[in-house]
Amino acid sequence: MTRTILLSLLAAGAAPIGIYAVAQRQAPALAPAEITQAAPASDWRDIPESDLLLMDVAGGGRVVIQLAPDFAPVHVDNIRKLAAQRWWDGTSINRVQDNYVVQWGDPTERKALPADVTAKPPEEYLRAETGLEPEWIPWPDPYARRTGFAGGWPVGGDGRGKIWLAHCYAMVGVGRNMAPDTGSGAELYAVIGQAPRHLDRNIALVGRVIEGMEYLSSRPRGTAQLGFYDDPRQRIPIDSIRPMAEVDPGARSTHQYLTGKSFAAFREARANRRDPFFNVPAGGADVCNIPVPIRRKP
Amino acid sequence: MTRTILLSLLAAGAAPIGIYAVAQRQAPALAPAEITQAAPASDWRDIPESDLLLMDVAGGGRVVIQLAPDFAPVHVDNIRKLAAQRWWDGTSINRVQDNYVVQWGDPTERKALPADVTAKPPEEYLRAETGLEPEWIPWPDPYARRTGFAGGWPVGGDGRGKIWLAHCYAMVGVGRNMAPDTGSGAELYAVIGQAPRHLDRNIALVGRVIEGMEYLSSRPRGTAQLGFYDDPRQRIPIDSIRPMAEVDPGARSTHQYLTGKSFAAFREARANRRDPFFNVPAGGADVCNIPVPIRRKP
Repeated sequence: MTRTILLSLLAAGAAPIGIYAVAQRQAPALAPAEITQAAPASDWRDIPESDLLLMDVAGGGRVVIQLAPDFAPVHVDNIRKLAAQRWWDGTSINRVQDNYVVQWGDPTERKALPADVTAKPPEEYLRAETGLEPEWIPWPDPYARRTGFAGGWPVGGDGRGKIWLAHCYAMVGVGRNMAPDTGSGAELYAVIGQAPRHLDRNIALVGRVIEGMEYLSSRPRGTAQLGFYDDPRQRIPIDSIRPMAEVDPGARSTHQYLTGKSFAAFREARANRRDPFFNVPAGGADVCNIPVPIRRKP
Repeated sequence: MTRTILLSLLAAGAAPIGIYAVAQRQAPALAPAEITQAAPASDWRDIPESDLLLMDVAGGGRVVIQLAPDFAPVHVDNIRKLAAQRWWDGTSINRVQDNYVVQWGDPTERKALPADVTAKPPEEYLRAETGLEPEWIPWPDPYARRTGFAGGWPVGGDGRGKIWLAHCYAMVGVGRNMAPDTGSGAELYAVIGQAPRHLDRNIALVGRVIEGMEYLSSRPRGTAQLGFYDDPRQRIPIDSIRPMAEVDPGARSTHQYLTGKSFAAFREARANRRDPFFNVPAGGADVCNIPVPIRRKP
């Protein structure tokens, strides 16, 4: 029983390292996963279905991507059109570089873009914080004047009214050539290692993987330059990427992210672990080590 | 040719996102990988062979681990003895939790420790900075008063003379039960995601993976609690973990890490990318996003 409680509270992102978990607890602080589990329904906010894509990787990998139209509207508009026209169906994962990114798209680089896609979107690296009211966290960051969360997304801020999405684990960005090219959105990557925050403000981030990340992160690493697969047969086929609204009802899913007092308590607990496993609370947390809790809508 | 140069300079940890790499460069700043490639032999320091273990994962995964005796001497002494006595041979990787850790050891939890292993080592979470002369980096960190590098390792510091290893990607730590247990060293994990720095000072770190990290990070994620494999048949057998000195000369390898002015320039370049792909240098870097360059000794 005690073991069950402990295992439960240690779940997903809250876990210590140890397999012998047996606890005796006296008025313990809540662990982050406990805070999430106890959150009232009013602290969970629905993610619009129009912001969701379902990616089916060959062999049974179901990946759900949430788009971020508030940050990169032209790129996201492109991506919605590409998904609606099933442009990625039959393309593949072509690059997996350890501790960096997994990248997918058309490996021939020759597949034509649909006519209604903006081939050269504007730089969508920064936006005004007005309208998104970031909640800043108080801990310092090596990459940005401030960091926090806006609309459920991890952001950096310059202290002068501009914010940008942060390259945290599972964030999805747009492959591009040398500037001024910004990428069309047809070539996408997801972060699979330590947050490469030096890419912030240099590349358009357009969303994040909110389910099925393991079907991207556990792929064999490519052995060619930059983690590309040496042999075309190593590429991992993508069966389809579709707007969630176009998925059969039986396979459709709806998702929510944590907000409000529960998310504030979650952030604090990620910075100061006082649950039984810990001796020393850190006193701070990195914005990318506070993964916004996301769940299937009950 | 230009493409070749660019791909070369973008290699390993220095890579932008893009497959269309074509560059026109005018007196460009050096990218981190270029700095590493240009470093003189005098900036490369040998890693003692007695600090190296060779882990052979079933199916051909060659993993080299560097131990950190300056930080956790009793745990490292245990680990050397366990390797010398081939205690891990026939054990397995039992847990892979996405964006967190891969963990290995005896899944039965019943295999006896050798008599000369210290079953309950002391807390080896902090040490004096005296004797290791850390090189601090100037950028703020949410987890420690200061961060930097000591003896080639990423460290946090409290500003009062104590330092500790930082839980960066590929660092190896010791699974433990609830405090005051510190773990014997028989149960080990490696970090495979965003640095879980909240574990710093709460768990003994004992080393890092310096070659073959992809044979750990790309494993299927476990679907039981904490990423344990549900089915024992999913466990990944470990053929052996041996001291490098006991490996056949043909399979033995020697390694070096970057120091001196070259490593200082590398740190600066990780914080301020001015090579052609980048528009905006970050102005700082996380200690865990400055992976200490390590190479096979030429």
